Amino acid sequence: MAIQKKLSLMIPGPTPVPERVLQALGSHPIGHRSKEFQDLVYSTTQKLRWLHQTKNDVLTITGSGTAAMEAGIINTLSKGDKVICGENGKFGQRWVKVARAFGLEVIEINSKWGEPLNPNSIKKILENDHKKEIKAVILTHSETSTGVINDLETISKYIRNHEKALSIIDCVTSIGACNVPTDEWGLDIVASGSQKGYMIPPGLSFISVSEKAWDACDKSNLPKFYLDLKFYKKSLNNNSNPYTPAVNLIFALEESLKMMQEEGLENIFQRHEKHKLAVSNAIQALNLKLFADNNSLSPSITAIESTQIDAEAFRKIIKDRYDILLAGGQDHLKGKIFRVGHLGYINDRDIMVAISAIGLTLLEQKIISTEKLGKALEVAETHLQ
Amino acid sequence: MAIQKKLSLMIPGPTPVPERVLQALGSHPIGHRSKEFQDLVYSTTQKLRWLHQTKNDVLTITGSGTAAMEAGIINTLSKGDKVICGENGKFGQRWVKVARAFGLEVIEINSKWGEPLNPNSIKKILENDHKKEIKAVILTHSETSTGVINDLETISKYIRNHEKALSIIDCVTSIGACNVPTDEWGLDIVASGSQKGYMIPPGLSFISVSEKAWDACDKSNLPKFYLDLKFYKKSLNNNSNPYTPAVNLIFALEESLKMMQEEGLENIFQRHEKHKLAVSNAIQALNLKLFADNNSLSPSITAIESTQIDAEAFRKIIKDRYDILLAGGQDHLKGKIFRVGHLGYINDRDIMVAISAIGLTLLEQKIISTEKLGKALEVAETHLQ
Repeated sequence: MAIQKKLSLMIPGPTPVPERVLQALGSHPIGHRSKEFQDLVYSTTQKLRWLHQTKNDVLTITGSGTAAMEAGIINTLSKGDKVICGENGKFGQRWVKVARAFGLEVIEINSKWGEPLNPNSIKKILENDHKKEIKAVILTHSETSTGVINDLETISKYIRNHEKALSIIDCVTSIGACNVPTDEWGLDIVASGSQKGYMIPPGLSFISVSEKAWDACDKSNLPKFYLDLKFYKKSLNNNSNPYTPAVNLIFALEESLKMMQEEGLENIFQRHEKHKLAVSNAIQALNLKLFADNNSLSPSITAIESTQIDAEAFRKIIKDRYDILLAGGQDHLKGKIFRVGHLGYINDRDIMVAISAIGLTLLEQKIISTEKLGKALEVAETHLQ
Repeated sequence: MAIQKKLSLMIPGPTPVPERVLQALGSHPIGHRSKEFQDLVYSTTQKLRWLHQTKNDVLTITGSGTAAMEAGIINTLSKGDKVICGENGKFGQRWVKVARAFGLEVIEINSKWGEPLNPNSIKKILENDHKKEIKAVILTHSETSTGVINDLETISKYIRNHEKALSIIDCVTSIGACNVPTDEWGLDIVASGSQKGYMIPPGLSFISVSEKAWDACDKSNLPKFYLDLKFYKKSLNNNSNPYTPAVNLIFALEESLKMMQEEGLENIFQRHEKHKLAVSNAIQALNLKLFADNNSLSPSITAIESTQIDAEAFRKIIKDRYDILLAGGQDHLKGKIFRVGHLGYINDRDIMVAISAIGLTLLEQKIISTEKLGKALEVAETHLQ
């Protein structure tokens, strides 16, 4: 375990966990029906609302991010309902699968992986839906598989104009990384997971639910129990949970949300923005190509094409030589891209060393010159200042 | 937090967590798609099979115990299927609700809370089911809400004789506390949760699935995604998970399963048996009445009637004065019973001090004599030797 303790996690999740959060995590559990735990649930709920920039309920589910997205879908919709699903990556694809698994009629809006969704495609369908048959627009804000951020601000405006359709948004790698003003954008369902911007290990997921979404819940006929949000809402009114929650992860959550409040939302967003710019510009200075459209780079993860060397072999060198874990490509992108996570508890030094490691590996493979390596670091530094 | 660190948890979950398990829990996370994590999944899976005494698949789900039970039900059954649900407590009641939420036709077999299910009632219905319409028998082995253990050995025999019906069993507070030989009893689905006999904090649940249950999964038409066990099985073949698992809880699981193997199954069962006997006999020596039938006492939890003083007030004294958290009664039993958990990481000293605290409180309230208090401790000690 000696080596593991210095592992640098630069994947899009689990992200690195601060020591004080790990210490909270490793505390002795307390009873989940105790007054002390109720106080904790109250405290985390207030902070979650702050993070989501919302007055809506923000519920905590013991489960992966997928559980929260599924909950958003099965609680607000009914069998046969027509929905739009944006699909431009692995996660968009997953929500199409979830929607179909529950018998929804899915209109897929696709973009090539690496490109953003076209807001106008969604706008057109919504504007032509005179009978208001479309019940929801389901999409991924930051597409973790490709490093693309979709233009949620614009798309959410079109959804609001439709008036009837709900927005059900996977913000798993955008919440806590860039601005997601839930109330300002009128987002009905926002789903996220603990092992991302939240800086805690996986096991909790979060879902904010608007009044409009609660109204839709009353009409939903899809069967559910563990993920029935009505039970969570009822419990939350008593600062409690319907089933035994992951108590120690809630300890960790309280600590990490405190850290986020100490840093401040604006500072968190700026830190992610500068890290995105440092990585993406340095990568290009190393003669590597970004996989994602340059105008739609995710603040959380940069996907990089690897044409001269198999991306998995590249990742292995970086892991073995520098103990930095980068992410690979998923599905058909395996071996073709690698991804640098810069989400959550990441500082400038982590960025510098990731670029150094990538550059040194390219140098060793005789793919770039020493000058290029120096240039890449210089470029990164201009963004980190 | 100084006081909290000495909190003695004697509720049926979360149960106390050993230091070495907490340390594992508080380690830096690693990537869940890494070789290191695959090795860990392989290792925990082998040990879970050992604990379940089975060759069946044992799957790990990020979620509460309720998620595992729901998974057992929705993966093997279809809308309109006829099932028997045993109901003699809060958890039995929950599975009736889950079954109905998913449109199953439920035949309820009830016993008064505090009494065990009558195996013959189940036998009769199964024997009269000549058309083999009953698809499953769903019940709770150790009913945490009442401290009753149901006679699963006998009931499982009747289910096997039916040949068609699956057994779907909540073993949340029996696995890791008493003998549950999955293969010998032919149990098709066994569900459990991490914060119980496993000695780790809540957040993981476990489900073992027999070949017969997998066959039933192929025919099930209930919609599911997050809890679709086929995805978990497919991933497990690669020592992986379909969605990001609670990595740090898996670290803790590996450590706690190691501890369980060091102690040995027989010793674990004997420890729980002697603690059950010590508590139940000492409690009676204190002139208190057991809530559960004396022949069906759960190895994990003892429910005690409190007639001379409100049970919640009693619990509060024990908490405030001795920092021992006991559990209260649920629903209509609130204020009428309190429950002493002796599940998981509990030693003889924990038992002695719980009895002392209960006895001293009764003495202070002038409900018992000093002699009774001494007698109770003496009785307990005879079982602890």
